[in-house]
Amino acid sequence: MTVRSIAQDAELALLLEVTGTPKPGNVDRNHDHDDLRFEHFMAGAVGARPGLERAADGERVGRVFERAVAGMVQQSAGNTQFGALLLLSPLVAAAHDDALTPAGTDEVVRATTVADAADFYRSFEHVDVAVGDPPAGLEPLDVRRGSAAIPAIEERELTLYDVMERSADVDGVAAEWVGGFERVFGAAERIIDGDGPVPDRAATVFLELLAEEPDTFVVKQSDRETAETVQRRAQAVLDGNEEAADLADTLVEEGINPGTTADLVAGALFVTLRRGVEL
Amino acid sequence: MTVRSIAQDAELALLLEVTGTPKPGNVDRNHDHDDLRFEHFMAGAVGARPGLERAADGERVGRVFERAVAGMVQQSAGNTQFGALLLLSPLVAAAHDDALTPAGTDEVVRATTVADAADFYRSFEHVDVAVGDPPAGLEPLDVRRGSAAIPAIEERELTLYDVMERSADVDGVAAEWVGGFERVFGAAERIIDGDGPVPDRAATVFLELLAEEPDTFVVKQSDRETAETVQRRAQAVLDGNEEAADLADTLVEEGINPGTTADLVAGALFVTLRRGVEL
Repeated sequence: MTVRSIAQDAELALLLEVTGTPKPGNVDRNHDHDDLRFEHFMAGAVGARPGLERAADGERVGRVFERAVAGMVQQSAGNTQFGALLLLSPLVAAAHDDALTPAGTDEVVRATTVADAADFYRSFEHVDVAVGDPPAGLEPLDVRRGSAAIPAIEERELTLYDVMERSADVDGVAAEWVGGFERVFGAAERIIDGDGPVPDRAATVFLELLAEEPDTFVVKQSDRETAETVQRRAQAVLDGNEEAADLADTLVEEGINPGTTADLVAGALFVTLRRGVEL
Repeated sequence: MTVRSIAQDAELALLLEVTGTPKPGNVDRNHDHDDLRFEHFMAGAVGARPGLERAADGERVGRVFERAVAGMVQQSAGNTQFGALLLLSPLVAAAHDDALTPAGTDEVVRATTVADAADFYRSFEHVDVAVGDPPAGLEPLDVRRGSAAIPAIEERELTLYDVMERSADVDGVAAEWVGGFERVFGAAERIIDGDGPVPDRAATVFLELLAEEPDTFVVKQSDRETAETVQRRAQAVLDGNEEAADLADTLVEEGINPGTTADLVAGALFVTLRRGVEL
């Protein structure tokens, strides 16, 4: 028997994430959206792996991320795992440093440079990602400008950590970057401590995370009120007052997908696999 | 956008195979067995890829297969994709020769050597595979002996092609090896010509293959009568006289899984992806 590499575990985490069901509002083993289906996530995970593998040679986090995104889009549905890869890229680097801990990952993201930030902006050339408008005065840094924004980044000497800091209050993935990956590692502990098949445990933890904080992707895609409604209904499912399957069906119907919460679970599953949990 | 490597397409074929549903009797997106679940196939596919990747360096087919199997077993359920990998290994080699055709694959398998046969026997050290008793007088070549049988193979100067030839009448994968991979390439054409999501097309072709010939894994696992019953019921589904989902539920309940037919579909999906069908 051989042992999975760090990049293989990252890829498998992406596959397990989309398998866990029910994950209300997201594509999972039992739910597709019209134009975003289960197989797109599989192709996204398979495609992203060579990019993630570059971390083994000490490639910088931004470049690993940008290459992973370039591989992810080898399917027709566009963005499948952008946020998950933005979490996995520093987690994979920390694992290579033999420091897959909140402190170890914090060290990785604080060490990012302006070059990493430029890679991040380049990654928006590969795929459309739902983002909000930048605050007034920060239009030159709008990620939707892609590579065109790089001179503005360089002029301001912004690292990728700096970029994440600026959107940490509106983006759950960025919040992890600047908050020691607290929710990711916390979720991993809960998956590790759970019982039963790993995808089922992940689905439970997804629901718990969703009930704890409004999903920032839902805020961007719809609005805060919608995100808070989803949060309350997730709690109702945990309290036994609503069926998870019903909530899942409703959200899929309404096109609401709590993608950021899914991203957190993907990161947590990677940590889980690196901790040696067997499937 | 980058382009998937040959090994990535082989891995993705394994993932798409297990996704297509309903594939009566097998694990699929909507069906698990008690001890053999969807996530085991995902880990099997992710684990097998580095072995398959060795074909890029011209590694021999037997060794590619043996390494893929060694990677496949990085999960607790044992044999998930042994037969599929036995088909994929020569198909991957043919793809590297830029000759992914029946003739090109036939050339690959006819060129296998005694060393490939020894690799094949070694692969049984990694995992328990359901096989029948060898014919009288051929006990020294029983695959269940694993590496212990290699001296007997060497003494008789049997290539891997020779080994496959000896079980072609009782094993659907071996029959492909010595029959120009006719069913694999035929199934690929049907998937390519189909409509709708690729996993759905693959599930339809699975049912067609199942209705055409008794599944040899069912013959080994149960008996020929059972395999013929499954064959008839698959035809009934195609004729609209039975629900695929009902057949699926029954077979899963009875622990009957037409695994060889699934292996053929995995091979066909690989060919489909190499032909450029987009997900």
